[in-house]
Amino acid sequence: MWSSSEAPSVARAAVLKESSSLPEDMPQIKGYDFNQGVDHRALLQSFLTTGFQASSFGQAVQEINKMIEKRLEPVQEEQESCDSHSSASGCTIFLGYTSNLISSGVRESIRYLAQHRMVDVIVTTAGGIEEDFIKCLAPTYLGEFSLKGKELRQQGINRIGNLLVPNDNYCKFEDWLMPILDQMVLEQKTEGTHWTPSKMIHRLGKEINNPDSVYYWAYKNDIPVFSPALTDGSLGDMIYFHSYKNPGLVLDIVEDIRRLNSKAVFAKSTGMIILGGGLVKHHIANANLMRNGADFAVFVNTGQEFDGSDSGARPDEAISWGKIRMDASPVKVYADASIVFPLLVAETFAHNAARLIKEKNSD
Amino acid sequence: MWSSSEAPSVARAAVLKESSSLPEDMPQIKGYDFNQGVDHRALLQSFLTTGFQASSFGQAVQEINKMIEKRLEPVQEEQESCDSHSSASGCTIFLGYTSNLISSGVRESIRYLAQHRMVDVIVTTAGGIEEDFIKCLAPTYLGEFSLKGKELRQQGINRIGNLLVPNDNYCKFEDWLMPILDQMVLEQKTEGTHWTPSKMIHRLGKEINNPDSVYYWAYKNDIPVFSPALTDGSLGDMIYFHSYKNPGLVLDIVEDIRRLNSKAVFAKSTGMIILGGGLVKHHIANANLMRNGADFAVFVNTGQEFDGSDSGARPDEAISWGKIRMDASPVKVYADASIVFPLLVAETFAHNAARLIKEKNSD
Amino acid sequence: MWSSSEAPSVARAAVLKESSSLPEDMPQIKGYDFNQGVDHRALLQSFLTTGFQASSFGQAVQEINKMIEKRLEPVQEEQESCDSHSSASGCTIFLGYTSNLISSGVRESIRYLAQHRMVDVIVTTAGGIEEDFIKCLAPTYLGEFSLKGKELRQQGINRIGNLLVPNDNYCKFEDWLMPILDQMVLEQKTEGTHWTPSKMIHRLGKEINNPDSVYYWAYKNDIPVFSPALTDGSLGDMIYFHSYKNPGLVLDIVEDIRRLNSKAVFAKSTGMIILGGGLVKHHIANANLMRNGADFAVFVNTGQEFDGSDSGARPDEAISWGKIRMDASPVKVYADASIVFPLLVAETFAHNAARLIKEKNSD
Amino acid sequence: MWSSSEAPSVARAAVLKESSSLPEDMPQIKGYDFNQGVDHRALLQSFLTTGFQASSFGQAVQEINKMIEKRLEPVQEEQESCDSHSSASGCTIFLGYTSNLISSGVRESIRYLAQHRMVDVIVTTAGGIEEDFIKCLAPTYLGEFSLKGKELRQQGINRIGNLLVPNDNYCKFEDWLMPILDQMVLEQKTEGTHWTPSKMIHRLGKEINNPDSVYYWAYKNDIPVFSPALTDGSLGDMIYFHSYKNPGLVLDIVEDIRRLNSKAVFAKSTGMIILGGGLVKHHIANANLMRNGADFAVFVNTGQEFDGSDSGARPDEAISWGKIRMDASPVKVYADASIVFPLLVAETFAHNAARLIKEKNSD
Repeated sequence: MWSSSEAPSVARAAVLKESSSLPEDMPQIKGYDFNQGVDHRALLQSFLTTGFQASSFGQAVQEINKMIEKRLEPVQEEQESCDSHSSASGCTIFLGYTSNLISSGVRESIRYLAQHRMVDVIVTTAGGIEEDFIKCLAPTYLGEFSLKGKELRQQGINRIGNLLVPNDNYCKFEDWLMPILDQMVLEQKTEGTHWTPSKMIHRLGKEINNPDSVYYWAYKNDIPVFSPALTDGSLGDMIYFHSYKNPGLVLDIVEDIRRLNSKAVFAKSTGMIILGGGLVKHHIANANLMRNGADFAVFVNTGQEFDGSDSGARPDEAISWGKIRMDASPVKVYADASIVFPLLVAETFAHNAARLIKEKNSD
Repeated sequence: MWSSSEAPSVARAAVLKESSSLPEDMPQIKGYDFNQGVDHRALLQSFLTTGFQASSFGQAVQEINKMIEKRLEPVQEEQESCDSHSSASGCTIFLGYTSNLISSGVRESIRYLAQHRMVDVIVTTAGGIEEDFIKCLAPTYLGEFSLKGKELRQQGINRIGNLLVPNDNYCKFEDWLMPILDQMVLEQKTEGTHWTPSKMIHRLGKEINNPDSVYYWAYKNDIPVFSPALTDGSLGDMIYFHSYKNPGLVLDIVEDIRRLNSKAVFAKSTGMIILGGGLVKHHIANANLMRNGADFAVFVNTGQEFDGSDSGARPDEAISWGKIRMDASPVKVYADASIVFPLLVAETFAHNAARLIKEKNSD
Repeated sequence: MWSSSEAPSVARAAVLKESSSLPEDMPQIKGYDFNQGVDHRALLQSFLTTGFQASSFGQAVQEINKMIEKRLEPVQEEQESCDSHSSASGCTIFLGYTSNLISSGVRESIRYLAQHRMVDVIVTTAGGIEEDFIKCLAPTYLGEFSLKGKELRQQGINRIGNLLVPNDNYCKFEDWLMPILDQMVLEQKTEGTHWTPSKMIHRLGKEINNPDSVYYWAYKNDIPVFSPALTDGSLGDMIYFHSYKNPGLVLDIVEDIRRLNSKAVFAKSTGMIILGGGLVKHHIANANLMRNGADFAVFVNTGQEFDGSDSGARPDEAISWGKIRMDASPVKVYADASIVFPLLVAETFAHNAARLIKEKNSD
Repeated sequence: MWSSSEAPSVARAAVLKESSSLPEDMPQIKGYDFNQGVDHRALLQSFLTTGFQASSFGQAVQEINKMIEKRLEPVQEEQESCDSHSSASGCTIFLGYTSNLISSGVRESIRYLAQHRMVDVIVTTAGGIEEDFIKCLAPTYLGEFSLKGKELRQQGINRIGNLLVPNDNYCKFEDWLMPILDQMVLEQKTEGTHWTPSKMIHRLGKEINNPDSVYYWAYKNDIPVFSPALTDGSLGDMIYFHSYKNPGLVLDIVEDIRRLNSKAVFAKSTGMIILGGGLVKHHIANANLMRNGADFAVFVNTGQEFDGSDSGARPDEAISWGKIRMDASPVKVYADASIVFPLLVAETFAHNAARLIKEKNSD
């Protein structure tokens, strides 16, 4: 068996195939060198050349910074005056996220963005709305993924991944919400208010009157918040209960779709930052189809494309639909947003804010 | 180094630890023996003792068959007469699925269930509605996951995973839908029709008048279909366009949440079959909280719990919320529903139907 | 707000973009129609046009059937006589699988393939070897994924996903293996046997002498089984213990790599069927690089590419390395093999065997 | 329908179930407040109370810091003198990682740990060895996941996720390796060297003589590196080619399993840090079974348990096997290690090193 003095030539040729040269400016893979000490910012900047999702993170930082830069571009006077729909911003940023992120500590990053009016439109699910208000009433706790459902139910403790929410929090939510629902029905009957999910969310943001709340700031800063299936959660439970005592509330979703689409159509340019999948991802992307595609896009989620779900689809699928521009460079980061989004905010919005403050002070 | 004549005792003790005996009736792992030929039904029955997701599949078959059996149980006359909300069925089956499954050939399995009134309530997303109608107007094609978005957009071809939908299909949908929207606005204005997503879906099912359509059969068999975010898709695009020509349509989501919750509250018992995550999963489970939990549940999806999403949550999380009963034995199958759901229907609803027909014929 | 009579033209143009026509022979998406009764074979054939992973399953059936057909092609006499390395088979099929599949009931499908010499080379991990023998000594049971590790350890029950293996099974394995190891050391010393993992596996297959065993048949049918890290598991534990009592055994991995590579280099054509990732996937693909790529390939696993792992890499990555031919049409099915592999065997190897028997009988 | 003045009592009772009180010291969910500026260290510390995988990250930091602290504990003289196997370290840290991480910039974090002797035992795959040496010969580049395999192969460019490795790099590796293999065969023949994978890796680390190399430092610092399937990669290709020119090299895996197991058995306590799955995860955990379980464990990977793979198994499965102690508090972070591992090193090993230097300087 060990006879011939040369390995089979097919094997040698296949293994030792020569390569064409790559472009000279192609980035080389190189990670952070801890011998230079722990410099977190330099570490996060090294992600771009670290490969895999670290590189995707680095690309997402670049993409969001492009949105921020574009957003700061001055908008021409003339244009503004003749088109009342026009956004005053050079780039309208749509932020979407699923309910669980409001339950988690990612809420504080989102609140920061709303507080400082760093995003222009928000889309979330019913849970993404109500959990913010409930957290103003009572805290959510850290638990474990493996806690048994039966034992938790017996104690009235609800589990969201490794978070725990005592059911009493929802009772407090009912106490807070019911009088507001009464008032909404009254206004509908007496003033002809045509309620939509976005109007209701604004009203709730005003009523909570608490600077910890995302939607308090959305109200204060006039950032519209869309959530077409607003009845799908505790809000729906309360509206259902309330309908027996004081029936008649109407929540119309037609006016909101027009309002949302207008935000995309009349924008100078748009960016999408979408955490998670499902409705929030589809709704923002679909609105951006109305303008023949978003200019910038960052998706952060753990979904995969193989099951054909919109949640797991790569940004390139959205390009086929005209939801992202053909010449855009959208980025998907395959990761749990609880780790990635606070880091993204640190390297983009918050870093930029710190920079602007520093520049102002040095003037 | 090779001195002592006995391996370290700690190692031997750890590796060769004795075991307590397991219960005698515990099922042994044993797969299908192809030496007995290819008997597909026996093969699928062997899944129960094959382990991993094959066993989950086997358990899902058992769980759905429990729903079907319970559903056939006679309902007492008396109860029925005094409570108009009561379901005539011993088990109200809620079926939920995401849009992509209607785009895929799973649609034909779902249509079969609606046609033969094998489920009682349907919940889906906007895409899960419109894609069914669009497929009555023009076909969807098999493509590849890796086709480039830019080239597809240039040709006006939309990609859904490895499916392709020519954009002309959506143009045909507009042609079909616009006159119906006109009619809906007219009825709202002249007859005071209070439109909700479920009423609109019923109407569209009537108008399509095509036995290939899921919602044609839902209309014929009076199966309510809920989709609170009905504007999030092509239907929303068309409603948006239509609002310029003929404004005023109102789609109210409050009446639908009451209707959906009533389906759960007044059921004798309930079963949930949910394909995919997001809104459809949460909406059905939340409705079942209204009855202190579903009695039976089967989830089929590819989501994972680690990111705290409701989509990926195990059924045990729903137990903590009271959305599934504490004594239930819910099943999650981690798989793409395109493979698993037709096989589940084969071993449950369709098998049972064949059995009933055989029994009838032999009488 | 509801003023202009036409929706923004950019929106209409984007949504209603016309499409180029698709090729006429493009397959249309169409699922199984249960109105024709439950015909499992027709159902599985409908998967090809069902979309998503159902279509991938259909394509995997086609790809494996191509391997089988090619394998049956007559090999020219001449070629055979002058090259002793030559395979007598028109297509050398490499089958790889991870340990857990032998623990599961997929083992019976694999055993069927080995028994009827339907595959030519096997690659697996240490666990994939030892679990087959252990199952000849005592059974594995069906448990649950959520059983607590601490309680199981206290009872000496090992968990593999939702499978349970009493630790006593490993004690029985020790009793069986130790005398064989003694014998192997003796032969090494007296006869100069140069042991490699593949030779040891063959010997164990001979010794187990049990038709339930995969490696009994691999031994009988002279199918080489490669497992370079054969010490990574219970076999390693036993070899470690044995080395104190009777030291000196040498297991060489160099001879095996030459033997494995030769199987690829001297094959007429090759096909790879790989269940799971890690070593088994890489080892088979790397051997096929030696022939400038496999002609056919089917991967079944749940891995994803985003983390840059070889386990999750799409077949297209293997093409870049020359591990799969540039003109091949490899298929990846994203699924748990416990569901998919028995169904694949049903529609390919086993179906084909039944067909051949039928043809023979009708002669 | 809107008659009764009270919602069904079953619904109210289910939704408004009272909760038992939670322990007072339970951590509340609270994310980072960017209003305090961008303080990366405070941000990463806030992860513990952010929920989902951010909390898992925070717990992993704590677990690794426990290993480091334990490792620094003084070892009693007496014990040391009478047992030559004893480790001088209070906690033997096993580090495992898959090949792709060496291809990525995570390599620099691993090199830092080896350089400063912060870990005690390394386990990796063949690729995890050779890619380190190859990177000393020529760079790896950043590409894209979607680059076409066929075009890349035509240019001789190999893809690893979104990394690109020109095939010339492997030719350079051959040039470097062949003379070393000659020398190894010579030493085997003349000096009776009994080669094992760990001995070969040490030798290669010595030969590369380059401070960028992980295995240069492993050699310098006498950190054993285990890789039982060392032939499964480019090293195997070269050994295969070399076997034709200069046959006879033997690589024995039996001596290495004894050496690896001894590292676990004779340790005071052990910690496992495992990035990725497959062989590296199983091999380290199996060695720790020899001591009845590791005391500390951190897994970072993207695998899931549903398919019964060892790769995706939760640490709790390892407890059932005795591979992790019953009273341990192991942590799994579900994430791509390219993002998470450099951050973990920053908050543990590197932070600790900086702290120690500061303390020393202030003395």
